Amino acid sequence: MRKNKISHNVILRLPRYLRYLEELRSKDVVRISSGELGRLMGITASQIRQDLSCFGEFGQQGYGYNVEMLLGEVAKILGIRRERRAIIIGAGNLGRAIIGKFPFEQYAFRLTAAYDVSHEIVGTEMAGLTIRHADTLAADLQDSPPDIAVLTMSGESARTISTLLADAGVRGIWNFTNQDLPNMGPDVIVENLHFSDSLLTLSYYMTHPKDNELEKP
Amino acid sequence: MRKNKISHNVILRLPRYLRYLEELRSKDVVRISSGELGRLMGITASQIRQDLSCFGEFGQQGYGYNVEMLLGEVAKILGIRRERRAIIIGAGNLGRAIIGKFPFEQYAFRLTAAYDVSHEIVGTEMAGLTIRHADTLAADLQDSPPDIAVLTMSGESARTISTLLADAGVRGIWNFTNQDLPNMGPDVIVENLHFSDSLLTLSYYMTHPKDNELEKP
Repeated sequence: MRKNKISHNVILRLPRYLRYLEELRSKDVVRISSGELGRLMGITASQIRQDLSCFGEFGQQGYGYNVEMLLGEVAKILGIRRERRAIIIGAGNLGRAIIGKFPFEQYAFRLTAAYDVSHEIVGTEMAGLTIRHADTLAADLQDSPPDIAVLTMSGESARTISTLLADAGVRGIWNFTNQDLPNMGPDVIVENLHFSDSLLTLSYYMTHPKDNELEKP
Repeated sequence: MRKNKISHNVILRLPRYLRYLEELRSKDVVRISSGELGRLMGITASQIRQDLSCFGEFGQQGYGYNVEMLLGEVAKILGIRRERRAIIIGAGNLGRAIIGKFPFEQYAFRLTAAYDVSHEIVGTEMAGLTIRHADTLAADLQDSPPDIAVLTMSGESARTISTLLADAGVRGIWNFTNQDLPNMGPDVIVENLHFSDSLLTLSYYMTHPKDNELEKP
């Protein structure tokens, strides 16, 4: 059913579709045209039609999209219709922000373990988890590797730990450290969230405000 | 001097060039060919030459790039050669992670104020800053608006606060809340760091591993 070629930028827009459709559903909106959805999201109706046509046929000429139905389809495309298990490594301020506030369950992720090395943090409880010492990680992974690992520790150990994770069968790494990870083969997906890259992007556009008109995903 | 058209994706790669060049400099590497740099970064030599040619002529046929020189040029392009003033709104776990650990000064940003609303947090000190009550924000902005504001508070107030900031002349917003901000006109640059979008991107690629071969910036 794929008519258009999928690009990374299309994929980057999918989470935004999900967010806007969830908001529409929460307001009991039953259907919406690509034009209206585009106005809300600040993109063109034709962009929306083109993006969604990468994955199938979801709208109906003259009717628009059924919000509930499209939301379900986008969730399915994003892979959040089956539960995945996550662990987090690093329970400093950033780790605690994520453990305490990030709505994993909303995206069908279940956080099952948290690790740190600081003796002040190990053993404390947070969001129903007792923080474990990172020394136990290797043994825990043998037992039952999670689907993904969230890296929120300081960057020095990022490469070693990610190799350990990949060897144990962890298939997704959500990397908040400021390090690029080694290539762990096609079976391990790495998603980097480099804060500094983001600030530098802001700095670029502030320095070259005219480029802010460039199309962004 | 711009030979190639700049795209958002080229801009997204610039912070990575900066990181790799900084690492090379720290190892006292004086020059590097586009081929070697490409192998380090996992992109092709021709991509590098094409990206950099958007901004000028930095290499020399048969010699490659002078690391120090190219680093300086990339820093200049990214706009981190003059100091900018930043404030942060929200000093919960995420805010504290950024106040305590993020190396603003490395990118010529200076964090000059932090705000929160919690009576447990307001008045405490962190990284040389006394956390101020968010009620004082409007008056402080009148006094001397910063260049950028970092939004790390909970999302409900994001739209109101960003409008307040824009009206006061703040030109850049680094948005960690999970809210899309209103359009504040061409003079206000918004850089979003939506954690959930990032996790959903990871989820997508884990669900469709073949698409992981798509070109990413």
